[in-house]
Amino acid sequence: MTSIRLYDLQVRDDRRPSPFCWRAKYALAHKGLPFETVPVALTDIPAVAGGTHKTVPILDDGGKIVSDSWAIADYLDEVYPDRPRLFGSPAERALCQFVETSLIASAARPILLCYLKDIYDCVLDKDRDYFRQSREKFIGCTLEELASGRAERIEAARAGLESVRLTLKGGAPFLSGAHPGYADYIVAGFLLWIALVATAPLLQSDDPLLAWLARVQDLHGGVGRAVPLSAMVA
Amino acid sequence: MTSIRLYDLQVRDDRRPSPFCWRAKYALAHKGLPFETVPVALTDIPAVAGGTHKTVPILDDGGKIVSDSWAIADYLDEVYPDRPRLFGSPAERALCQFVETSLIASAARPILLCYLKDIYDCVLDKDRDYFRQSREKFIGCTLEELASGRAERIEAARAGLESVRLTLKGGAPFLSGAHPGYADYIVAGFLLWIALVATAPLLQSDDPLLAWLARVQDLHGGVGRAVPLSAMVA
Repeated sequence: MTSIRLYDLQVRDDRRPSPFCWRAKYALAHKGLPFETVPVALTDIPAVAGGTHKTVPILDDGGKIVSDSWAIADYLDEVYPDRPRLFGSPAERALCQFVETSLIASAARPILLCYLKDIYDCVLDKDRDYFRQSREKFIGCTLEELASGRAERIEAARAGLESVRLTLKGGAPFLSGAHPGYADYIVAGFLLWIALVATAPLLQSDDPLLAWLARVQDLHGGVGRAVPLSAMVA
Repeated sequence: MTSIRLYDLQVRDDRRPSPFCWRAKYALAHKGLPFETVPVALTDIPAVAGGTHKTVPILDDGGKIVSDSWAIADYLDEVYPDRPRLFGSPAERALCQFVETSLIASAARPILLCYLKDIYDCVLDKDRDYFRQSREKFIGCTLEELASGRAERIEAARAGLESVRLTLKGGAPFLSGAHPGYADYIVAGFLLWIALVATAPLLQSDDPLLAWLARVQDLHGGVGRAVPLSAMVA
């Protein structure tokens, strides 16, 4: 019986799309640590694990509570130093942050805007009002108005992933080189998120990202393997 | 007397703008290896160091010839393993390649198009015909036609550096974290290149990139300190 629990955002049909939770699930799998996920609704997050955190992932390691995907990764490397490291060096960690910010700057915003309505359509009934209100306040229009400009935004989102394609063109199997690392989990987390909610394809079927994503899905006993990519691929 | 020589692209007034040569100069300085640069005109590159290489940087380490900035960095880490490493791990090297491709995808192309005419105006007289012919063939129009759309392209180039700004916003002094690394030299190389040729500013004076760039200029005895940034800053 495992003592590690990960609070994981749940939407309809028990899907678990959160890109930040994917990072934490991959981080635990990379370390070879057994864990169980605890599904949590968006509006229930403030009530779990002592009620001190507003976002998932939240890790409960035998009573030690850690939230935020970066903090969880750091915690795991610190507390389980003899298991495979998530960050081989401080520089690798810093460059993983560049990978995240680079994707935020080039792809995450168009991706979010393309799929926000799809995400809304997936959230649990109890979360729908909160999701609509908070997200419409953020974007400054209704979710339906946002969805109308989707075709061009999908092009922009697809183009915003070009840095990942170019890097993989170098021939290494993973963004982190010969072996998978946290940078791979960051990017895969974004794509698995979309794969679980999309009603319009983000990637073309010949996109070189797909072979890499399949490799990442198969890692560590197949932690991401159950996610079907078909809804995301034209 | 040093035995390491680095062939370094020379333009008017003995400026040395090549972003790839900057990486090699920083790599040597990071390793603490004394070296001398050998100025070389663009059209003279095929004649130097045995005549087997078409681009600079070319390193001559006591007769051992290495060209290409990545190969030079790898060579230095391999042959001088007891000096500070350029790549602390294979993953750090892989993520440095992501930094390069990310900048190529987001910033390098608009930057190149903004400043190609400025670069032409800087190259040595003997290189001008070759530069114009080869670059106009590449871009499909004259350098003067290209220069006409510059104002909007500068906006795009500036925005294309947002990933670097966002990463530095995390609070670390360098892209590589607490200590400078090859990722910093890649990005600084692009900016020092433009600083040495620009006739129109790339950055606003309050750009947070500037404090970081000044730190990189001061590294390793000030290898990049002599480059004035004023032409690049509004």
